[in-house]
Amino acid sequence: MSEAGTRRRGRGGGGAARRAARTAVSFETARYIERNIPNFEILNEEALEIIETNAETVLEEIGVNFVNNPAALDRWREAGADVDDERVRIPRGLARKLCSTAPSRFVQHARNPERNVEIGGKSLVLAPVYGPPFVRDAQGGRRYATIEDFRNFVKLGYMSKWLHHSGGTLCEPTDVPVNKRHLDMVHAHMTLSDKPFMGSVTEASRAQDSVDMCKILFGEDFVRQNAVMTSLININSPLTFDDVMMGSLEVYASNNQACVISPFIIGGAMAPVSVAGTLTQALAEVLAGVAYSQLVRPGAPVVFGTFVTTIAMNSGAPTFGTPEASQVIYGAGQLARRLNLPFRSGGALCGSKLPDAQAAYESANTLNAALLGGVNFMLHACGWLEGGLVSSYEKFVIDADQLGVLHRLAEGVAIDENGQAMGAMREVGPGGHYLGCEHTQANFKNAFWLTDLLDYKPFETWQEEGAQDTVALASKRVAELLAQYEQPALDPAIAQALDEFVASRKASMPDAFV
Amino acid sequence: MSEAGTRRRGRGGGGAARRAARTAVSFETARYIERNIPNFEILNEEALEIIETNAETVLEEIGVNFVNNPAALDRWREAGADVDDERVRIPRGLARKLCSTAPSRFVQHARNPERNVEIGGKSLVLAPVYGPPFVRDAQGGRRYATIEDFRNFVKLGYMSKWLHHSGGTLCEPTDVPVNKRHLDMVHAHMTLSDKPFMGSVTEASRAQDSVDMCKILFGEDFVRQNAVMTSLININSPLTFDDVMMGSLEVYASNNQACVISPFIIGGAMAPVSVAGTLTQALAEVLAGVAYSQLVRPGAPVVFGTFVTTIAMNSGAPTFGTPEASQVIYGAGQLARRLNLPFRSGGALCGSKLPDAQAAYESANTLNAALLGGVNFMLHACGWLEGGLVSSYEKFVIDADQLGVLHRLAEGVAIDENGQAMGAMREVGPGGHYLGCEHTQANFKNAFWLTDLLDYKPFETWQEEGAQDTVALASKRVAELLAQYEQPALDPAIAQALDEFVASRKASMPDAFV
Repeated sequence: MSEAGTRRRGRGGGGAARRAARTAVSFETARYIERNIPNFEILNEEALEIIETNAETVLEEIGVNFVNNPAALDRWREAGADVDDERVRIPRGLARKLCSTAPSRFVQHARNPERNVEIGGKSLVLAPVYGPPFVRDAQGGRRYATIEDFRNFVKLGYMSKWLHHSGGTLCEPTDVPVNKRHLDMVHAHMTLSDKPFMGSVTEASRAQDSVDMCKILFGEDFVRQNAVMTSLININSPLTFDDVMMGSLEVYASNNQACVISPFIIGGAMAPVSVAGTLTQALAEVLAGVAYSQLVRPGAPVVFGTFVTTIAMNSGAPTFGTPEASQVIYGAGQLARRLNLPFRSGGALCGSKLPDAQAAYESANTLNAALLGGVNFMLHACGWLEGGLVSSYEKFVIDADQLGVLHRLAEGVAIDENGQAMGAMREVGPGGHYLGCEHTQANFKNAFWLTDLLDYKPFETWQEEGAQDTVALASKRVAELLAQYEQPALDPAIAQALDEFVASRKASMPDAFV
Repeated sequence: MSEAGTRRRGRGGGGAARRAARTAVSFETARYIERNIPNFEILNEEALEIIETNAETVLEEIGVNFVNNPAALDRWREAGADVDDERVRIPRGLARKLCSTAPSRFVQHARNPERNVEIGGKSLVLAPVYGPPFVRDAQGGRRYATIEDFRNFVKLGYMSKWLHHSGGTLCEPTDVPVNKRHLDMVHAHMTLSDKPFMGSVTEASRAQDSVDMCKILFGEDFVRQNAVMTSLININSPLTFDDVMMGSLEVYASNNQACVISPFIIGGAMAPVSVAGTLTQALAEVLAGVAYSQLVRPGAPVVFGTFVTTIAMNSGAPTFGTPEASQVIYGAGQLARRLNLPFRSGGALCGSKLPDAQAAYESANTLNAALLGGVNFMLHACGWLEGGLVSSYEKFVIDADQLGVLHRLAEGVAIDENGQAMGAMREVGPGGHYLGCEHTQANFKNAFWLTDLLDYKPFETWQEEGAQDTVALASKRVAELLAQYEQPALDPAIAQALDEFVASRKASMPDAFV
């Protein structure tokens, strides 16, 4: 410590030091959430049984289509399903029986073992936005996403305390040929972060590339024995399993890698315009999809997925944060738990074009439903904007800050002697105040969750500092985080092998932009 | 219908008509919410019993202060409490026993009987912001509130579909002398709206003025027999009951008018810095306050209130929408139900200076907790900004729109044949779409909740129309609502009598501004 430093401290530098500590960027990552609170159960036993019975009826009478996939049809035929052209009708009870070999929880490993996550049971693992072709920030507005944006979002995710997972397609790097993007994306997750991540699903060969890269990063034996990716397999609702997604599922399941098997439903268009009907179709679809994963490899880790938005029936636009979407999350969570499967839903979903009040209201509605609805794996937990068309830099950090609220809420209420605080009430008494009492002194640092972003300054201070709204504060935080980013260490031999794999695979393909 | 009108319709006016219908201001008021969903219960039986036992210990060993109120001390002494100076120590079980005469639910009557609300049981009644000295709008910024602002907020509340209650001090009309404000405020609620409202609590004489004005509006007999006001009695936490608030409570209870009896707690300052400790103190305070109301008049309608914010322990600023505040709402709801009392908490609470993402995130967190936590009466359900210092015009309509989400969510999931929608799934089948199917056609109008405010337009349309954020949309809606406001009819004799009462009371007082 220099003399000058000491002297500055002597002149009230304590306050400055505290301010610096408050504004310093934290690299700490919270452990995934393990709920110590009950789930909210919106459906009673009778409703659950009706939906389950109806879902079996859908599978038995209507069936599902496995498109352009003779091997899948063979597997179903052997398992005892009634296969007619591409239509697979599944006798009552068969799908549920096949699902029973799927684990109720599994560990997804990260290259930094401290970042491993458990998916299932009472856990909640938070992963960022997935899929948008555009990005938006306060400076540049809305524009097509690039690989540079993608890397920036990996860095932001790495540095976000409440985010446990690096995610997958954080945005589409549209400046990279379609057939090569997955290599750059998986490479970025592997090298710029040490959190767990998702593999490519846009073609079976790209899923295989993802597995091969994991073998380089983790070692072949390790990958054979452990889940190191959780990838997103969408079902083409209603009741359709296309060969691209199933091809990726087959690669992952046969390599014992985890998949989220997820109906993607715009309510009223891709499922009936009622919550119970939507839940019935979603359950039928997940039953068929999970059963199929277990036909590929019994015991392959999978997640019961549900992505449901509603629709503005006067315009056809998808809508988010709506009460029906929350009801679907609550109900689907109950159905997943009765199947003994990990559950994926939720996210900071919104339809707004900007990270404004609409975006936040919609996102908060969905985040709250997902926490109380028992979600185990939450994609789109931060950064999602404009119905999933846009990854927003500012919304990424706004949402990521709010994820801290979920952590604390999930801890439940401490009821030990310190939590009861009877000594404090005896010490303070009627008309006193608690700020200085012993219990407060002992607990104040961690008593209440505190934002790293939002503003609680006195009005006059806030005005003098430019009357900044949440987007302005977020914009500053994005810049700070990216400026302070430091790449996590990686064995240089592995880094080189990954570089070489990507270069070699790219060299073997023509550029394709569609 | 003019020929021109007919012709315009002929030229595709159907679309225009639908657009007009969508943007037309609706005067409809939804019935108060009756929940068809369970409550979220965060505390288990053991935790509840510990908190209840500890609250009785607080009352017995520490006691509460009734300040400057010899009549109250006499009542407590007669009831069997240990009174020492202003300290009232209440033997274990006595307060709870006294509380048992309070009704578990009651009807608050409005001058328009269709607007009557039931408070208690599974109901949720929504009332607007209460108390701010400032207002803010997008045009004028932040400024001291006036009686004109107050009247505007009464009009906005009257025209808000999802708001059941006109509230009380929507903002402080700082241009009216302090001792006369209550007359103008109660007069505005009575004449500019026909929804139920709250009375004045800032002095016993002002509570009496509120009762006397109700006798003019409703008739003396009616007021004697029915609750026509629900007014807000704050407890000075910790454990202090001041003579002003108790004076008002005495007036209302003795006139059989309803009161919310509500600890006002900035956590860590006015209660212990732990959730269980805060719940214990709040329960002790409500037990003492409700018991006192029943000493004044057994059977007087009261509501178990809880207003708790947390605090940023590094600056002392109150914080909103935090997980601990939600935990208090959930826990207090359980305690209120075990006491068989209606419960007040929640609101669109926030600390932000602007109706931005922070404001919406914080508000949504609290609204969601209040719905699932079993709140029966929600003050501050819309319009609250900046920690309660500001009533925001734009946030009023943004929040009020979101209250529709709570209505629909509370309906639960329909599981009848129409809800099951098996016919739709059979009709559409794998790979089809539901937009045109019979079930969708029959249900689409009311299938999904639809905002009256938020934006779901295509990006290009939104951009062409000026890329408006939520505040801009809200600003327009405020102007539309105020422009289209029409005063509800009132018997001219009653209107004149109210005018005369206000004029006569004002003439009897000097102007006081403090």
